[in-house]
Amino acid sequence: MPVGTQGTVKGITPLQLAEIGPQVILGNTYHLGLRPGDELVRDLGGLHAFMGWQGPILTDSGGFQVFSLASLRKIKEEGVTFQSHIDGSTHFLSPERSMEIQRNLGSDIVMALDECPHGRLERSKLELSMARTTRWLERCRAFPLAAHQGLFAINQGGVHLDLRLGHLEEILELDRRAEFQGIAVGGLSVGEPKEEMNELLAAFVRLLPADRPRYLMGVGTPEDLLFGIEHGVDLFDCVLPTREARHGTLLTSRGRIKIKNARHRNSPEPLDPECNCYTCMTFTRAYLHHLFRAGEMLGSTLNSIHNLSYTVGLTRAARQAILAKNFPDFARRTRENWNSEES
Amino acid sequence: MPVGTQGTVKGITPLQLAEIGPQVILGNTYHLGLRPGDELVRDLGGLHAFMGWQGPILTDSGGFQVFSLASLRKIKEEGVTFQSHIDGSTHFLSPERSMEIQRNLGSDIVMALDECPHGRLERSKLELSMARTTRWLERCRAFPLAAHQGLFAINQGGVHLDLRLGHLEEILELDRRAEFQGIAVGGLSVGEPKEEMNELLAAFVRLLPADRPRYLMGVGTPEDLLFGIEHGVDLFDCVLPTREARHGTLLTSRGRIKIKNARHRNSPEPLDPECNCYTCMTFTRAYLHHLFRAGEMLGSTLNSIHNLSYTVGLTRAARQAILAKNFPDFARRTRENWNSEES
Repeated sequence: MPVGTQGTVKGITPLQLAEIGPQVILGNTYHLGLRPGDELVRDLGGLHAFMGWQGPILTDSGGFQVFSLASLRKIKEEGVTFQSHIDGSTHFLSPERSMEIQRNLGSDIVMALDECPHGRLERSKLELSMARTTRWLERCRAFPLAAHQGLFAINQGGVHLDLRLGHLEEILELDRRAEFQGIAVGGLSVGEPKEEMNELLAAFVRLLPADRPRYLMGVGTPEDLLFGIEHGVDLFDCVLPTREARHGTLLTSRGRIKIKNARHRNSPEPLDPECNCYTCMTFTRAYLHHLFRAGEMLGSTLNSIHNLSYTVGLTRAARQAILAKNFPDFARRTRENWNSEES
Repeated sequence: MPVGTQGTVKGITPLQLAEIGPQVILGNTYHLGLRPGDELVRDLGGLHAFMGWQGPILTDSGGFQVFSLASLRKIKEEGVTFQSHIDGSTHFLSPERSMEIQRNLGSDIVMALDECPHGRLERSKLELSMARTTRWLERCRAFPLAAHQGLFAINQGGVHLDLRLGHLEEILELDRRAEFQGIAVGGLSVGEPKEEMNELLAAFVRLLPADRPRYLMGVGTPEDLLFGIEHGVDLFDCVLPTREARHGTLLTSRGRIKIKNARHRNSPEPLDPECNCYTCMTFTRAYLHHLFRAGEMLGSTLNSIHNLSYTVGLTRAARQAILAKNFPDFARRTRENWNSEES
């Protein structure tokens, strides 16, 4: 899922996005609740109409941003009081308020509010946090969403398999009537060593219910996507493709390219000869190099179109490989190709 | 002609530009000669291929930018030595060098190099400058362009009708075999009072040869376009539509709108109900207000799509009104409508 934090995937029109072809995009409850405000979005017909995107939208709970962007947080059982990163004004986020914002935004997939511990929190504190996340999940579940909305639960537990399994059991306790349309793995890629994350994913994801989507939050790089898919993840979101694009790092079938490097200055080649996106079908590396050097905004747009096309295309190809029962071969070839060009 | 200074109309893809529908776009000889360099563009197939624009391109001579952007200029009969505004490196622009750059860029319309006096230069100095412009024109005319390229001469003379006519005579002296595919009116909108510019245009433009396009350089606002068309101008270029768009000022059939104003915050209306551009057909003022307030680049892109569509549409409508022989009525109604909404 490309990330549309403030009601726009940065630099990309909905028409361009539809051509890129993601199945779902993500909107941010924290940002949109503060500005322009969820009631305004509701009054204008919901987030789909507001931003001109006709496909499905997942909204996060706002929790991760409150825990990472806002200041002067006070966390209590009822919810979190925080100050806006925009104007310092005081706001309150609780499970009910998160659900209310997401109902007003009218997204298709609603995320439960969880506490977001950082990746190196000690085990005893993590357990306290997880217990609160479970109690908050129960409150989210009780909130009346719109008929078209589905609620996803978020599993926590850091890189500890036993904690993950314990928390999953608590979630499934609350899920007796299949209230949750999907299960997310939260609290990873937040400061813990990568090997520990991967070890946890390899052991844990396959134990999640197979009858609904498994969503790995805030991940990631092409390497992370492939690893996640390999171990059973269905759904990802990450700002990386668009952020890297704006910084001139392009994700390609041959590996990463830094477009500002002098070796691209004269290059008549497309960014990625394997890619059929608008950028690769229309422009040379020399042109993209020029736009980046000249600081032209079109560079950010064209780079973002490519990086999103590459990332969405990678997941599409992986899905086809799974259906064709040759995923291991696909994964091996993809990884080999990543090392075939210097940036 | 939308302006694509550095090989891109800022924030707009060529595909979006084709939908907007200008007949010609403008590229800048000064900027492209410095970066990425005209030889590089030539080696990559010319400016059309480089920037992915299949329609006609006019390139300016580079003179105006050397006289306004570069520093440490030394002007001699042979040409102008100047320092790049990018890295301070020293360069030389002469009639021959300007033609060479434009031949390398491969534009369809090539502008002769002129000296660009500012709008309040005293008459005697202006006459010296114009004499040099004529000598430079002769040198431009002698330069072998590519077969598909046409050369436009530039008429100077400030707001003095007699100087303009004298210079026009000199140009037509050099034009015995119809060497010039069009005549441009240069040196206006550069600091002189607007009434003096308009008075000059009203008296002068109709005296230009009727058998080739008349191009008013660096103009302008919708009001200026309408006034120019009224007095016989065929071709304009100006950065105003895209620059104003990035600053949140929208040109509409009802007048100018400042999208950041609070009155647009909740507005479900399109920017301009008369406009059929992507922006107006897809998004509300509330959304554009939000993008502007949030500093999102998509706001600049959507605003630019609208302002270019409005400006190109205005000239298209004017042309149709002329063909239908009801231009005066069209101009009157257009001006009345511009006053129908507060910004």
